[in-house]
Amino acid sequence: MSKFLELKRECYEANMQLPEYGLVIFTFGNVSAVDRKEGVFAIKPSGVDYSILKPEDIVIVDYDNNIVEGSMRPSSDTKTHAFLYKEWEEIGGITHTHSTYAVSWAQAQMDIPIFGTTHADYLTTDIPCAPPMSDELIKGNYEHMTGQQILDCFQEKGISHKEVEMILLGNHGPFTWGKTAAKSVFNSKLLEELAKMAYLTRQINPQAPRLKDALIDKHWQRKHGKDAYYGQS
Amino acid sequence: MSKFLELKRECYEANMQLPEYGLVIFTFGNVSAVDRKEGVFAIKPSGVDYSILKPEDIVIVDYDNNIVEGSMRPSSDTKTHAFLYKEWEEIGGITHTHSTYAVSWAQAQMDIPIFGTTHADYLTTDIPCAPPMSDELIKGNYEHMTGQQILDCFQEKGISHKEVEMILLGNHGPFTWGKTAAKSVFNSKLLEELAKMAYLTRQINPQAPRLKDALIDKHWQRKHGKDAYYGQS
Amino acid sequence: MSKFLELKRECYEANMQLPEYGLVIFTFGNVSAVDRKEGVFAIKPSGVDYSILKPEDIVIVDYDNNIVEGSMRPSSDTKTHAFLYKEWEEIGGITHTHSTYAVSWAQAQMDIPIFGTTHADYLTTDIPCAPPMSDELIKGNYEHMTGQQILDCFQEKGISHKEVEMILLGNHGPFTWGKTAAKSVFNSKLLEELAKMAYLTRQINPQAPRLKDALIDKHWQRKHGKDAYYGQS
Amino acid sequence: MSKFLELKRECYEANMQLPEYGLVIFTFGNVSAVDRKEGVFAIKPSGVDYSILKPEDIVIVDYDNNIVEGSMRPSSDTKTHAFLYKEWEEIGGITHTHSTYAVSWAQAQMDIPIFGTTHADYLTTDIPCAPPMSDELIKGNYEHMTGQQILDCFQEKGISHKEVEMILLGNHGPFTWGKTAAKSVFNSKLLEELAKMAYLTRQINPQAPRLKDALIDKHWQRKHGKDAYYGQS
Repeated sequence: MSKFLELKRECYEANMQLPEYGLVIFTFGNVSAVDRKEGVFAIKPSGVDYSILKPEDIVIVDYDNNIVEGSMRPSSDTKTHAFLYKEWEEIGGITHTHSTYAVSWAQAQMDIPIFGTTHADYLTTDIPCAPPMSDELIKGNYEHMTGQQILDCFQEKGISHKEVEMILLGNHGPFTWGKTAAKSVFNSKLLEELAKMAYLTRQINPQAPRLKDALIDKHWQRKHGKDAYYGQS
Repeated sequence: MSKFLELKRECYEANMQLPEYGLVIFTFGNVSAVDRKEGVFAIKPSGVDYSILKPEDIVIVDYDNNIVEGSMRPSSDTKTHAFLYKEWEEIGGITHTHSTYAVSWAQAQMDIPIFGTTHADYLTTDIPCAPPMSDELIKGNYEHMTGQQILDCFQEKGISHKEVEMILLGNHGPFTWGKTAAKSVFNSKLLEELAKMAYLTRQINPQAPRLKDALIDKHWQRKHGKDAYYGQS
Repeated sequence: MSKFLELKRECYEANMQLPEYGLVIFTFGNVSAVDRKEGVFAIKPSGVDYSILKPEDIVIVDYDNNIVEGSMRPSSDTKTHAFLYKEWEEIGGITHTHSTYAVSWAQAQMDIPIFGTTHADYLTTDIPCAPPMSDELIKGNYEHMTGQQILDCFQEKGISHKEVEMILLGNHGPFTWGKTAAKSVFNSKLLEELAKMAYLTRQINPQAPRLKDALIDKHWQRKHGKDAYYGQS
Repeated sequence: MSKFLELKRECYEANMQLPEYGLVIFTFGNVSAVDRKEGVFAIKPSGVDYSILKPEDIVIVDYDNNIVEGSMRPSSDTKTHAFLYKEWEEIGGITHTHSTYAVSWAQAQMDIPIFGTTHADYLTTDIPCAPPMSDELIKGNYEHMTGQQILDCFQEKGISHKEVEMILLGNHGPFTWGKTAAKSVFNSKLLEELAKMAYLTRQINPQAPRLKDALIDKHWQRKHGKDAYYGQS
């Protein structure tokens, strides 16, 4: 019997939240969940419809993209997941979708401005949009370099993946991550909602200002600071 | 046995309408219900998902923010609710959400113009948007001062909370209230719909005029005036 | 036993389609159905929520607004229905809603241009938007004059209520009608869809041209002309 | 017993996906499925609501529009389907809808630009919008010439129906096709999603650039090229 039953189940359940949250149609998304002790992660098989996906279809892969267990081909984005798990030891799950509003900002090649406290409750900066990859890299190890593209964007903007758990890839779409697979899905839903609100805000008032620093700080601190008083402790 | 069973039930049911009406995702909202005789109000616990919320989780708090009954931490917005109950003796319930269109107008920092009779059936003025708080106040007793911010806005604009049962807080989102908790939820749904219609109206015709006074007056009077003929008496 | 049981049932079922089609929230709409032989019509009671509406709540009214049967107060828009039934002998049902996109065009005070064949399949002109009523009339017999406003608009534009079964009232919202109550509800849903498509069309291309005459004629003729070949005969 | 039972069933099931995917209201759509060996295709009857459609209602027609089996009148668009089956031997199914965003681009008379990898995963060019037909042709054999209009558009733009399985007809709406009826429905849903994303992209950034060639090529190749690694082989 597989020793990854629980990991597969966690990965399966996180994947099934994507259609439930309205974040995917067809097979436009994938979630992975890592087992740090074993040095492997579980990921959705490529091109399998959510309506027929089963826990046992989930594929187990190591950080170098070798299939450890599973008879199906893993997501075509597997190398990007592997790259991020290798680089970022703190994360436990990764989600990729083509959700409507997040993709639209990615196609517009623009960061999503921090316009309000809904945004500041979770992150203190604009949501970064990485510029499209150079042609040379695209023709090479594309999905691996997508991971590099994410790292480079965070480095250039001087932001930390521990504080900002989401990114848009220019012309492509969003990747999000978190301490667990479920948290990475939460972040994908949050991103989609922030993307929609920011879109509407600029349609209503093209000169809408970014949220001022005092409010950014207050809302983030009350949820995540050392004296946080949001939620049950 | 708790003497607040009925109050908790009323508060619970009003809270559960928020996801049903599509006004919240995750934990982005809270409703409270007051018991004027006992001088306390019931409010949603902080950060608890609607899918697992139970009537017995509801927290009982007095107007000075002391927990009277309940083992969970109340909503992080509790001080704003307490402030308003103390100031406005007529109100029986308060709702706060991050609903999409209302937040977008709040982020645009603009009042929602009264464009039609759907709006005039319920209130005779634009829906006010309070300017963001000063940095000094934000760093202080923030949620308490949010109540003050609401009061100040109504005073400056010369409108009454008995006639206008809703406000947008700039960069944040909507608060609504009413004679009961259920009425405050109704007002949140109404506000979201008016916010969407006003958004579309201005997209179709940026020069759309405000509703003229004769129509404002007629529609409000037929629903709320002394010779009102809307609804069952 | 009431002789209007069947009429009430028809009216009730047409009303219940409004929330099913997503055309109303709360009590924002009403449908009536006429019995030409008896000279009366059935209409939704005022302010009753769709979730609790029952067939026996439906009120029977004559063309002069006298209640013929029913213990509840009829819709506050009853006089408009009565006016139209009196003037237009061919119609069998009337629907009024505050559906989102139709109201937004009404608030923008603009006709909905005929942009495509979806529109031409049902009517050959722009959907008219009547200008707001004069202040004098508003202060008078408002709902009665709303019927007059509809008649005047059709006369000024030289269009017939037999061919164009819908109108927007400036700053208010849509009225639609048809041979039966169900057909008037169909027209309300159709109008909402055409209003949304026309909105999007102009957002994509502000210079989008109206549909040319040859296509208007072709699509209308193939559905409604003497050699129509759409549907089952 | 009919020898077309299975063909009718395939056609029926594909048609029923249209309301499930939110692509049609009322009777605004039709799907057909071909049997190449028999030289006939199955198509939805005209004007029959999806809620009452049954497999046995499906009509069997040959490529010259003769009814081979069935008691109902076939879709008013049947001649367009027949034309395309005759011209394009590779296709197995055709779908026509009036879905909201696709129709809006058709009414705007604009191609849908290829803005991102969601688009490039399926086709490498803009989605073509055919200019409206000349008045002379409209007055003639309209639905037959609609097929010709599609062919002409592909020829003028130098694109192949084997690679681009969708088109917008100016002022009208989308036609899509594929190896099976189900695939043609998939393409209709895909088109609607791409149309919505492209709409939002241009609203956010009117200067949004088209996707660059290297990314177009990469995404298409990884799904459809000879070394494709998407999906299960």
